[in-house]
Amino acid sequence: MITVALSKGRLFDDFIKYLEEKNLDKYSGVLKEKSRTLYTTSGNVRFIFAKGPDVPVYVERSVADIGIVGSDTLEEDAFSYLNVSELPFGQCHFALAGPPNIERFETIASKYINIARKFFNDEQQAVSLIHLNGSVELAPILGLADGIVDIVQTGSTLRDNGLIEYQKILDVQARLIANKQTFYTKEDDIYEFLSEIGVIE
Amino acid sequence: MITVALSKGRLFDDFIKYLEEKNLDKYSGVLKEKSRTLYTTSGNVRFIFAKGPDVPVYVERSVADIGIVGSDTLEEDAFSYLNVSELPFGQCHFALAGPPNIERFETIASKYINIARKFFNDEQQAVSLIHLNGSVELAPILGLADGIVDIVQTGSTLRDNGLIEYQKILDVQARLIANKQTFYTKEDDIYEFLSEIGVIE
Repeated sequence: MITVALSKGRLFDDFIKYLEEKNLDKYSGVLKEKSRTLYTTSGNVRFIFAKGPDVPVYVERSVADIGIVGSDTLEEDAFSYLNVSELPFGQCHFALAGPPNIERFETIASKYINIARKFFNDEQQAVSLIHLNGSVELAPILGLADGIVDIVQTGSTLRDNGLIEYQKILDVQARLIANKQTFYTKEDDIYEFLSEIGVIE
Repeated sequence: MITVALSKGRLFDDFIKYLEEKNLDKYSGVLKEKSRTLYTTSGNVRFIFAKGPDVPVYVERSVADIGIVGSDTLEEDAFSYLNVSELPFGQCHFALAGPPNIERFETIASKYINIARKFFNDEQQAVSLIHLNGSVELAPILGLADGIVDIVQTGSTLRDNGLIEYQKILDVQARLIANKQTFYTKEDDIYEFLSEIGVIE
């Protein structure tokens, strides 16, 4: 038995689509049916549904053998895990955005305060950073910040709030990570699952 | 014009009920109607809907003059604001919980890592703390922790997961906070609103 921690939300839907394209109904079926519970099992695989930032915690602490999570989460905080593979879904990117005609950003709001800090450090630009938990796109409208660092998918959230993208910071996509010990001690079961879902040949 | 930041979720529903009991349809009406947007206005009052932990950020930084938020959020992180009043809703409490028959807790999972740390420091008990973002009640089932520090309302989440309450840590309820400057510079408008909603006579 292996345990796979899945990030709830957008990535979860993408993962189900990915399984459906590979005709892996044994997994996509139970995942769709049980998405409102906390965990479910299909054959030899137990799935735990977790908030994105909890997935690497579960993997690091051996509660899950494998985790499927956005690289945004893995870049924002430091965890200990094996980086097994990129997955072909969940593509988006981090961007610096703000209202048009900002010459120099002074205050930046972001949910991803570490990624924002690293970006401005690398740019050698001194800014004041404000950590928010939601509705980051509202910050420039409210006068809380003159810019934001946020994930951009289609760009419609930026447009709806009168913001434009100033600079792309970092590509984001789904990643498959593994626990550093059980990747070896449960090698056969893990390889079988990775092979089934097409991550290895 | 004054701006009031409201915590989305459970407290938001409680606040609407509170307004309805006081026949303040001018506020409860627009709040119910607009709860899916990011902000709305009624007369002289603009409401911003925010995630709980962002409410004190808005108040501290003068984006909102007043905030209505759970004391759990105010206790977990340090912010600068005026503590105006407790509000008669949002009552619950923090508790230490776990499976039955735990003699000594060694690993504790919590969303409220600072409250958990303070509790065990005060108890002079050394524990290992794990910060989670969701589904904390799952941690003992998964073997991630032997106990949790979490908010308890009815106790049904604990019961559903086979957990019992070991110790009450702290009472929680809704609080009304204000920005330290605008509480004086916008005194008349703020007092009018506080009087309307029955916080002051």
